[in-house]
Amino acid sequence: MKKLNTSPISGMQELLPAKQAIFNNLKNKIAEVYHRHGYLDIETPSIERTEILLAKAGGDTEKQIYKVNKTAESADCADQALRFDHTVPLARYVVEHENDLAFPFKVSQIGLSFRGERAQKGRFREFYQCDIDIIGRQNLPIAYDADILATLISTYNSFEIKTPIIARINNRKITTGLLNFLNLSEKSADIYSIIDHAEKIPVEKTNEALLEIGLNEDDVKKILAFINLHGERSFVVKNLSNLAVTDETFLAGVAELDQVMYLLESMGLSENISADMKIVRGLDYYTGTVFEFFLPEYREIGSMGGGGRYENLTGYFTEQKFPGVGGSIGLTRLFYVLNECGLLPDASDKTIDYAIVPISENEYDYAFNVASKLQAKGSSTTIVLTDKKLGDKITYAAKLAKYGIVIGESEAKSSHLTVKDFDTGKTSDLDLDA
Amino acid sequence: MKKLNTSPISGMQELLPAKQAIFNNLKNKIAEVYHRHGYLDIETPSIERTEILLAKAGGDTEKQIYKVNKTAESADCADQALRFDHTVPLARYVVEHENDLAFPFKVSQIGLSFRGERAQKGRFREFYQCDIDIIGRQNLPIAYDADILATLISTYNSFEIKTPIIARINNRKITTGLLNFLNLSEKSADIYSIIDHAEKIPVEKTNEALLEIGLNEDDVKKILAFINLHGERSFVVKNLSNLAVTDETFLAGVAELDQVMYLLESMGLSENISADMKIVRGLDYYTGTVFEFFLPEYREIGSMGGGGRYENLTGYFTEQKFPGVGGSIGLTRLFYVLNECGLLPDASDKTIDYAIVPISENEYDYAFNVASKLQAKGSSTTIVLTDKKLGDKITYAAKLAKYGIVIGESEAKSSHLTVKDFDTGKTSDLDLDA
Repeated sequence: MKKLNTSPISGMQELLPAKQAIFNNLKNKIAEVYHRHGYLDIETPSIERTEILLAKAGGDTEKQIYKVNKTAESADCADQALRFDHTVPLARYVVEHENDLAFPFKVSQIGLSFRGERAQKGRFREFYQCDIDIIGRQNLPIAYDADILATLISTYNSFEIKTPIIARINNRKITTGLLNFLNLSEKSADIYSIIDHAEKIPVEKTNEALLEIGLNEDDVKKILAFINLHGERSFVVKNLSNLAVTDETFLAGVAELDQVMYLLESMGLSENISADMKIVRGLDYYTGTVFEFFLPEYREIGSMGGGGRYENLTGYFTEQKFPGVGGSIGLTRLFYVLNECGLLPDASDKTIDYAIVPISENEYDYAFNVASKLQAKGSSTTIVLTDKKLGDKITYAAKLAKYGIVIGESEAKSSHLTVKDFDTGKTSDLDLDA
Repeated sequence: MKKLNTSPISGMQELLPAKQAIFNNLKNKIAEVYHRHGYLDIETPSIERTEILLAKAGGDTEKQIYKVNKTAESADCADQALRFDHTVPLARYVVEHENDLAFPFKVSQIGLSFRGERAQKGRFREFYQCDIDIIGRQNLPIAYDADILATLISTYNSFEIKTPIIARINNRKITTGLLNFLNLSEKSADIYSIIDHAEKIPVEKTNEALLEIGLNEDDVKKILAFINLHGERSFVVKNLSNLAVTDETFLAGVAELDQVMYLLESMGLSENISADMKIVRGLDYYTGTVFEFFLPEYREIGSMGGGGRYENLTGYFTEQKFPGVGGSIGLTRLFYVLNECGLLPDASDKTIDYAIVPISENEYDYAFNVASKLQAKGSSTTIVLTDKKLGDKITYAAKLAKYGIVIGESEAKSSHLTVKDFDTGKTSDLDLDA
């Protein structure tokens, strides 16, 4: 026999059952909260035509894309690839099914995406992305941005992780408007890029970088003061007003930020939000609200997801305009990070409630019967059917389940059952008809 | 703008939200019932090394496999492919993680598989397979076959489809033993293939086929009588005994079939099972119990899933022996078939409970507040934030949700809410604090 490598391909998540149960639990919570907030779930195919996936993308995306080919050459499978995110497939979906959807279309997508990145710790080539988006036809009021944020914050809070999460929120109109006002629009791409990196480097380096692209010291000072502005809504809005910027885009951005954060406050989420002028998000298709999630007590691990407002989802597929706002939780990375930081629930918590241990084959029928009844009541129940010694069967049962029920001749006859709690060793009677 | 084709690739499922909700509901029920029966869920990567996937397979599988390649050539992505089922990845997983698993290992896998088949009606290139398997180390008692069958039957029954499902059950040892007894072992591959097709052709054709491979008329008669044997356990077992076959394999097969079906009867599943000597399942790796699911009232649509017992899961990866029993629900095909037959629940049933309709922006904060409270109670609740006329907002709300709550100035002030049932038109008071 040829010895084959049985490890999973590097950059792919593969978990043992106990960890998988925790992962599934987070995934189910995401689905549940998204649904509870009125998002309609869809699932597009994992494989799309390459021309669709690359209609907009370029550079890195094209390099990271996984193309698929049938081994037997066939013309109808040429030029297909695995999706690298949910945004492009969503754009295609909206254009394709426009007439069957009610707009604004509140939509969720939970599924795998694929990127052939260089494998490294904490980066995955196959990963779950859990997106929500709200797509309007022609226009989409700003209050929907609060809807997206409220849903994502509620989702994180549902995880019951013992460290709080903060959404750092900005509006790109504010930054754009300020740069207009300072006559720096021509350099805005460079400045955005510098702001985007400002968090990870000392302020002197940012200062240097801004001088290097030709800004004068006065403007640099203004920009540094501006991007340092963060905190509670009323505080930040007041300070922004104090800048006395008259640019209309700036003022519109401040008003939008104010409204979005006010609505989140009215939902009791003040503790989970912070205005922050350093958040711009690199992706150039965001045009208004932008946000990223952080664990303030674990700042070093960086962003835990984010999103924002975009002017047009479908620009590459149709002349019609579909503005939207959306956000995403990168579940596979999030799970990896929470695990590394020891923030996940204990993986030794067993997910099976009862293990039924018939002593001999004579009790199998009764054991199956008891199991059916417990299962019908919603308890996860397994039956130990190995032909081993009773002690070995009980050891196996105790590895899997919280409670054990041994069934011998007398139990099968009398229908009297004793349940043993494997953790405490305590026993109690079980009345199946109760 | 170049006009791009925005339809999904042929052979891929893409549903509108209302249908997707029904699909998700079935998928969630499968996961829930599998869990309730004590199966531990795992998820292997979609992408595997080609040498792993093709270790055992040949012929059609190799032709149907989707290879993946990064656009930018890179040595570490060479020779990878999308999985075409869950069995091969499970074998790899068991060998890789053997020391961390408790055997017998009851495992479930719910996920996508990929086959580049020729696209045709009702066949999918990307499809959900929902597998359960029980893997033993060295040996696995026969009663576990009943566990698999009971779980799959309970899963189908949980769908609440208005037509019953039947598991037609056989044991390949019976057929093999009979052929031994008749001195036809040398022709058994041909005979198995003929039995496997017998259902789809008239009995005269089967008769002809058996004569063609060189059987005498007496043996043909015996085989035709044998494969026609089906029905209740005690009836079939009695008739098999009446054949007076002395072959040991035959007798072992009858005893196994008897035991498996007896245990299913003791779980109250008599209505869902039938012994049937015509079921052999083409796949040559089954060695004992085999079964397939059918809707007796929709016989023409064929098998709705199946499975069986195999001698060794991991023969291509390790010298150690891991016998198993397993079964699978092909959810994407099942969903397609149920939809075609009109057996799915009504897709017009709305999945969102409440739509909150604030009359103006002044009520947005209160509307969000009410939504949070309903969501916290577990109700799916959406807020209509468009700047349209009230009538248009209500029309949109009625498309999405079961109930509507209009919030104007007086509602926001008095906290008095009226709920309208969009189906009946009836209104009632809502007390949020109750």
